[in-house]
Amino acid sequence: MPLDRSALIPVLRNVATQLRIDSVRSTTAAGSGHPSTCASAADIVASLFFAEMRFDPQQPHHEQNDRFVLSKGHAAPLLYAAWAAVGLFPRSELLKLRELSSDLEGHPTPRLPFVDVATGSLGQGICAAVGTALNARRIGSGYRTYVLLGDGETAEGSVWEAAEAAAFHKIDNLVGITDVNRLGQSRATMWRHDMDAYASKWRAFGWHAIVVDGHDMNALLDAYAEARTITGRPTMILARTFKGHGIPAIEDKDAWHGKPLKKGAEEDAAVQALEAQYLPVAPDAVQQAIAAVPKPEGAATSPVSRPQVPPPPYKLGDSVATREAYGSALARLGALDPRIVALDADVGNSTFSEKFEKQFPDRFYQMYIAEQVMVGAGMGLAARGAIPFPSTFACFLTRAYDFIRMACISNLNVKLAGSHAGVSIGEDGPSQMALEDIAMMRAEPNMTVLYPCDAVSTDRLIELAAYHPGPAYIRTSRPKTPVIYELTEEFHVGGSKVLRQSASDVATVIGVGVTVFEALAAYDRLRAEGIFIRVIDAYSVQPIDATTLVAAGKQTRRLITVEDHYEAGGLGDAVADAVASAGLTVRRLAVREIPRSGKPEELLERFGIGTKQIVEAVKG
Amino acid sequence: MPLDRSALIPVLRNVATQLRIDSVRSTTAAGSGHPSTCASAADIVASLFFAEMRFDPQQPHHEQNDRFVLSKGHAAPLLYAAWAAVGLFPRSELLKLRELSSDLEGHPTPRLPFVDVATGSLGQGICAAVGTALNARRIGSGYRTYVLLGDGETAEGSVWEAAEAAAFHKIDNLVGITDVNRLGQSRATMWRHDMDAYASKWRAFGWHAIVVDGHDMNALLDAYAEARTITGRPTMILARTFKGHGIPAIEDKDAWHGKPLKKGAEEDAAVQALEAQYLPVAPDAVQQAIAAVPKPEGAATSPVSRPQVPPPPYKLGDSVATREAYGSALARLGALDPRIVALDADVGNSTFSEKFEKQFPDRFYQMYIAEQVMVGAGMGLAARGAIPFPSTFACFLTRAYDFIRMACISNLNVKLAGSHAGVSIGEDGPSQMALEDIAMMRAEPNMTVLYPCDAVSTDRLIELAAYHPGPAYIRTSRPKTPVIYELTEEFHVGGSKVLRQSASDVATVIGVGVTVFEALAAYDRLRAEGIFIRVIDAYSVQPIDATTLVAAGKQTRRLITVEDHYEAGGLGDAVADAVASAGLTVRRLAVREIPRSGKPEELLERFGIGTKQIVEAVKG
Repeated sequence: MPLDRSALIPVLRNVATQLRIDSVRSTTAAGSGHPSTCASAADIVASLFFAEMRFDPQQPHHEQNDRFVLSKGHAAPLLYAAWAAVGLFPRSELLKLRELSSDLEGHPTPRLPFVDVATGSLGQGICAAVGTALNARRIGSGYRTYVLLGDGETAEGSVWEAAEAAAFHKIDNLVGITDVNRLGQSRATMWRHDMDAYASKWRAFGWHAIVVDGHDMNALLDAYAEARTITGRPTMILARTFKGHGIPAIEDKDAWHGKPLKKGAEEDAAVQALEAQYLPVAPDAVQQAIAAVPKPEGAATSPVSRPQVPPPPYKLGDSVATREAYGSALARLGALDPRIVALDADVGNSTFSEKFEKQFPDRFYQMYIAEQVMVGAGMGLAARGAIPFPSTFACFLTRAYDFIRMACISNLNVKLAGSHAGVSIGEDGPSQMALEDIAMMRAEPNMTVLYPCDAVSTDRLIELAAYHPGPAYIRTSRPKTPVIYELTEEFHVGGSKVLRQSASDVATVIGVGVTVFEALAAYDRLRAEGIFIRVIDAYSVQPIDATTLVAAGKQTRRLITVEDHYEAGGLGDAVADAVASAGLTVRRLAVREIPRSGKPEELLERFGIGTKQIVEAVKG
Repeated sequence: MPLDRSALIPVLRNVATQLRIDSVRSTTAAGSGHPSTCASAADIVASLFFAEMRFDPQQPHHEQNDRFVLSKGHAAPLLYAAWAAVGLFPRSELLKLRELSSDLEGHPTPRLPFVDVATGSLGQGICAAVGTALNARRIGSGYRTYVLLGDGETAEGSVWEAAEAAAFHKIDNLVGITDVNRLGQSRATMWRHDMDAYASKWRAFGWHAIVVDGHDMNALLDAYAEARTITGRPTMILARTFKGHGIPAIEDKDAWHGKPLKKGAEEDAAVQALEAQYLPVAPDAVQQAIAAVPKPEGAATSPVSRPQVPPPPYKLGDSVATREAYGSALARLGALDPRIVALDADVGNSTFSEKFEKQFPDRFYQMYIAEQVMVGAGMGLAARGAIPFPSTFACFLTRAYDFIRMACISNLNVKLAGSHAGVSIGEDGPSQMALEDIAMMRAEPNMTVLYPCDAVSTDRLIELAAYHPGPAYIRTSRPKTPVIYELTEEFHVGGSKVLRQSASDVATVIGVGVTVFEALAAYDRLRAEGIFIRVIDAYSVQPIDATTLVAAGKQTRRLITVEDHYEAGGLGDAVADAVASAGLTVRRLAVREIPRSGKPEELLERFGIGTKQIVEAVKG
């Protein structure tokens, strides 16, 4: 039986005290960490875990559990202490904080079963929380998402992208709590304890805002209850707190960010002061509170398995832009698998995600021109079982690189789609040309990078991306290109296609995307002169097909890569790395300077990646 | 003599009509572009250029000119038409829009003398405008900055980072104008014509907000005048407009984003309709208005030349983290050159930019936890003659990658400083470790990448970065490292240091930053076994010292790179590319998986870049 409020409050206060003690002890043991940051938010976390959230403490992955996202990831010890307090693992584990052998890392990662997305880069957790909240709608679940932010964190623009998106999508199953503890890392925050300044911003962004004393359990419980009554918009609880609360030596003091108490007298005094704050409660009161945590409701949705995907409706020679084939492929896949969802940044009529939106408006999330929350919400959706495809111009994915980095740390199933790659977009000019996106994506060791050249390969690579575990990137192009693959052609992550070969090949030209056609044109031009080359489509840029490339290198002696991308970090580097151990080197044709506006064909030649330059490289 | 308002209004309306006609004609001639976007903002631009801004139309670079930043960069034809209208170049040039031979690109770049920063990635111009506004304060100038935003653009979080920063820094010399034309690219914007929704957001963020009819010249002039009276905070003018205004066939119609009118009847009808809007004015009225544009006031500041920088106060064997040496170097340089400014994202006590702040509080801009506006404001400052050093943890520079991309397109003098690189930060875990930053920076072809290993090289590389033209990146480390360079040692962009060598070297190990010391330790361990290796510090990662590396490769036969960075796009790729044409290949030691928390030395070994692995690689 749940405790009544008067009996519950001292229990919650004791839990909060325990969380503070655990945060002090674990960070002191580690010799680093953020105890003051934990202390300000301990009452919030204690009340959420013991008196608000509906979840199974022994099954943190349960599909119907309420979600808790620690957007202020540096309060990790507090999060770990909370899960220990509800009984998921012994409190003694907390003293292994930040050790190489422990998953209780300095900032939370999904190595832990109760973490949906890695946090620690501020302003990201709330974006992911938008995704987990949208996911509840997708699976028809009543679960709610709670996200804890720091006050300093709300300087991040991504927080306001999330604010707009959550209000626009009317996700009233999302509750934010901002721990307004006044102090940032190096100094006081911009707005200190000006609670009205915070409240008016959230209200202006369409949220219901509640200001409370974040150390007053009654006020917190009332705020959660009020949030449950709000429909049609999310709620932000602005909790006025003190950094280091409960620890006299550090409370509300500057220069205590990210600093543990010293082992010995400093730690002991803090723990003693905290222990003195324990209130008398019934001996089994905490256990009773844990037992009273409401369990998740609703049946788990049926598991979905990978569907049989029929071949796409193209024929050889059809002229289709890969970006358009992307939209078609996604819509076709969406019809076969309810986990497929799409997000876009108001460019769906360019990325062709509109084809998916038209068929599955309920699984399409328009995030407007806000790439960070688009990717961040995708991360939250992926963490809860969806297979999200966020799409925009490839160059604007650079806007979300920190999110992509964290998605890779989290090894989430996010499938990023970037259109309008390279100088081949033409007249719009360099600001719209992605020329560093392959480098950015390849740098992440667990990112799969796929780059189709025609509509058939696009279709198959979308399917591969969807069902290959972990993060993936699909790069598409603006110009129409001819279909060169039969419908029966098979593609693999880590594969490639040898498009031309003979026993007398004098070089191998490795193209990808639009440059496959430049390479094929070079082949024709050279063949007319009696010179034969091998042509390879390296559609899987990461992992790359080392076996085929090494074999081609050994047979033809020369390897030439050509890519609509800057030189560093792209296809050329990928091939060079793959063949290095065989003692082979690579000649790289790539864009080597900041490009400019012009016609696509003009630009390919002007920036050194056209048919002419391939012919010259083969002859040179 | 300036025209009085009643005579001025018809002139401004005619200028706006001319700008619309030019926007239609130039985009039709180009066959692509955004005429509807130009038409909504034509009245705003006409009134700014002809009746508000103080500038010399023939000297767009003038230090004391008011600045105009087109944050909605896709309205480029309107910007070009405005400068043609004030007489900087002939209107006939406008018809070369988007041609390879013309600098009138699809989106504005600083190839044009009147463009401070490239725009076209939305949400960036306002961040740069914060920088140009701060620069006026730096040089003691009364010039004002005007920035034109799109309504859809304000979904970008970076806009709200700029809003917070501008309010915090009280830059009342900044005026924003949002062209609220209701329509985004793929559909209506989130807030359509809800002017109150916009106004309450800007007000909540501390701005003075004014709502006007953006096609009413009187209202616009009144708003500009009101903005001049506001002190202590910036002003945002929210102009209600219609996309395609003045062109009946497209006005306020969906599906006309980024689409020119067709040559022939469609274009002719639009131009005819616009021409019919010309009002009767005196024959020389436009010339009179141009002549009346107030010229910039104030003398130009004296030119500053590169100072003689004395050597830093270190001695061999001192133990100093390069991040700390960074702060010291910047402060020492700041004392010698008033153009040096610093920005930080509330981590100045970790990046040690606080050393600069303490000495030069007026040239230090605290941007709090908002990396996009930190870099964006740096771009604006750089465009106006400052030498800005924005600093944060290197991993959080990924947050600003799109800004860095655009800074490179603009070839701006921004010097990015990233601390806490790699797994050597230890316990904080992967979210705080930069492991893709070199890849991200190297991908940009004009980015200089410097990576010091000790305090002396840090000091010298900061100076090199400051005075090497164009964007630069300096990567520093968290752990203390011993000083290994004499104060007299010379460093060069594109240089390296051979630290150990002999005639019997069996391999060359190329380290950088913390791995230089792993390489030196490997040298000692191997020498004890009678094995000699060459050790090179490749402190200039881009450009890299190809000559030295090729020579070492030829002499020692084997090249081994070791870096505290992921494999793709880092030092290994840089070296491999540099030596490929000599037929040499590279063995790469790098971090090849997502790391985790642990002690720095443990992590170097666990992730394959420690002394042990170098010794194994040499022997292997």
